[in-house]
Amino acid sequence: MYPETFEGFQVDSSETWTSFHKREFTPKPFGDYDVDVKIEACGVCGSDVHTITGGWGPKHFPLCVGHEIIGTALRVGPKVTLIKVGERVGVGAQVYSCLDCTQCKEDNETYCRHQIDTYGAIWPETEIVTQGGYASHIRAHEHWVFPIPEKLDTTEAAPMLCAGLTAFSPLVRNGAGPGKKVGIVGLGGIGHFGVLFAKALGAETWAISRSRKKEADARELGADGFIATEDKEWNEEHRMTFDLIVNTANSSEGFDLEKYLSLLGVHGRWISVGLPEGEGQLVKSHMFMSNGCLIGASHLGSRKEMLRMLNLAAEKGIKPFVETIPISENGIKQAVTRLKKNDVRYRFTLTDFDKVFPS
Amino acid sequence: MYPETFEGFQVDSSETWTSFHKREFTPKPFGDYDVDVKIEACGVCGSDVHTITGGWGPKHFPLCVGHEIIGTALRVGPKVTLIKVGERVGVGAQVYSCLDCTQCKEDNETYCRHQIDTYGAIWPETEIVTQGGYASHIRAHEHWVFPIPEKLDTTEAAPMLCAGLTAFSPLVRNGAGPGKKVGIVGLGGIGHFGVLFAKALGAETWAISRSRKKEADARELGADGFIATEDKEWNEEHRMTFDLIVNTANSSEGFDLEKYLSLLGVHGRWISVGLPEGEGQLVKSHMFMSNGCLIGASHLGSRKEMLRMLNLAAEKGIKPFVETIPISENGIKQAVTRLKKNDVRYRFTLTDFDKVFPS
Repeated sequence: MYPETFEGFQVDSSETWTSFHKREFTPKPFGDYDVDVKIEACGVCGSDVHTITGGWGPKHFPLCVGHEIIGTALRVGPKVTLIKVGERVGVGAQVYSCLDCTQCKEDNETYCRHQIDTYGAIWPETEIVTQGGYASHIRAHEHWVFPIPEKLDTTEAAPMLCAGLTAFSPLVRNGAGPGKKVGIVGLGGIGHFGVLFAKALGAETWAISRSRKKEADARELGADGFIATEDKEWNEEHRMTFDLIVNTANSSEGFDLEKYLSLLGVHGRWISVGLPEGEGQLVKSHMFMSNGCLIGASHLGSRKEMLRMLNLAAEKGIKPFVETIPISENGIKQAVTRLKKNDVRYRFTLTDFDKVFPS
Repeated sequence: MYPETFEGFQVDSSETWTSFHKREFTPKPFGDYDVDVKIEACGVCGSDVHTITGGWGPKHFPLCVGHEIIGTALRVGPKVTLIKVGERVGVGAQVYSCLDCTQCKEDNETYCRHQIDTYGAIWPETEIVTQGGYASHIRAHEHWVFPIPEKLDTTEAAPMLCAGLTAFSPLVRNGAGPGKKVGIVGLGGIGHFGVLFAKALGAETWAISRSRKKEADARELGADGFIATEDKEWNEEHRMTFDLIVNTANSSEGFDLEKYLSLLGVHGRWISVGLPEGEGQLVKSHMFMSNGCLIGASHLGSRKEMLRMLNLAAEKGIKPFVETIPISENGIKQAVTRLKKNDVRYRFTLTDFDKVFPS
């Protein structure tokens, strides 16, 4: 009655990262708290590209990526209480955490030392490599499976599961709201959610981009202001006026961090959510001295934040910009190739899973 | 009745940074809110050495440094309400801020864009370079002059005016107190105050040093624990256990920042208070990803924090480790030369000002 193996599109090596092969694979043994999801759509995330191209280092191939998953709960373990069979649900970039450590108990389960990524991780005590959502099914612990509010469209909800949450969590954790001035650096998949959510949370929201090319989009997404860093002395008139800047840029090349930090008020925060490849940035204490600012990074978000974000999106009718592509070897190839070139406005969702994975 | 010029020991260039020349200089015109202090003692700060050696770049010479000043209020301006003539007072590393900007109004006057350093700054609308406390007198705005509690010894209170406050402010601003685990990196002038104050504030206090050479001192200062970073795998057993680490190290050479950051719990903070010379540190987002930690820096502290720190020190009978040296050309030379080599346990205070600057 339930499938014992799943099917998905795998990449075999970083040299052949645009070649996807439809194959069967065996998921981890079904546990008491597990939920099997029949997948209907999956967003295409920058992480997928960093992973299959080898940009983040060697990975366990063959690998099926994808961690912005929407589908229907097909089967739930005997101890599952959070999810019902038949519900429309989402799965993001994690499928497990211990729920027992300090981090898990304080809604920081994304920082659990036993957490398991949706794809490319090894299940403890097995040799099974987790496989992602360019697939027929996904198996995840119920804590990492989220009911999707009725008002949200499947193709629009998919990219919220990783890109959306990645933008939302640092906003709420660092006080974005009425009376606060928030900047979002980089208008890509995550950045466009940053603008949408900062605005929805009530903050004065500014998009910060290299050129003015995306200004109209930023305004349409709700930005109150726009800064182009190719303008001369672009930081001068905004010095010490921002409470929080969420940096979604995927590259640190040619990045004059000191100028960005000069935008922050006293103890203002610069939170990076991208994981650019490359050497990193040279940081000196004097860059922080004029305002005592802080820099940091943020990794995903908690279950509570995920549910809050999905409800906020439903309530406020938040509309991300999503291009859909039917899933297939060629469809995925097109999506990852265009994403690698930042040629997307602003997120892809793969659809029509029922055509390639009939039940 | 009041001196129109002051006298102090000046350095003429960074090439001759160990040659101090006793000379007269003219302070800024006496203002309505100004206080003239007859100096009795002055601490010797790392900043003094960075400044006269040119390590922080070119400065306005000839220059008299010193910004850990204790003396007696000799004269107060007609609008002064905070200080009385005859009071024992201190002056730290700033002598002015506008008191009118957002920063000043929110007890962040140390980040005021109009702030003036005690030495080496130029008074607006004049060509007068501020001169520090290796001198007969100092003139400062009353906001930057602090009554010294009776219980504190002059030679011990002096280094609190910069080193003490520099350690104290980030501790209180980042929640050091009961139930928190706080690390102090570097057991020098500032670091030893860090241990004293973190403990006085009720935090579980750990000293973090390269070797075990200073362990006995750290314990004597009140440290609950000691970590030597030359030990193998020194960070492993402390991973994700610290709430706050104040980094007082004066050099970033050979510094494996990632290991230090691994000590922090979720959203824990690494606050640097030194301004090491040199290139800075290479920082990558992945260094922050396992705990979502933040790094930043802190600059001095507010008047409120200064008063709170002095009272806490008096109340708890806090005893810094201070070596005294009578002021003279040779005495100062000895102090700065030894400080440059970190050969001090843990702070110098210059004394006997009345012998070289008779009133």
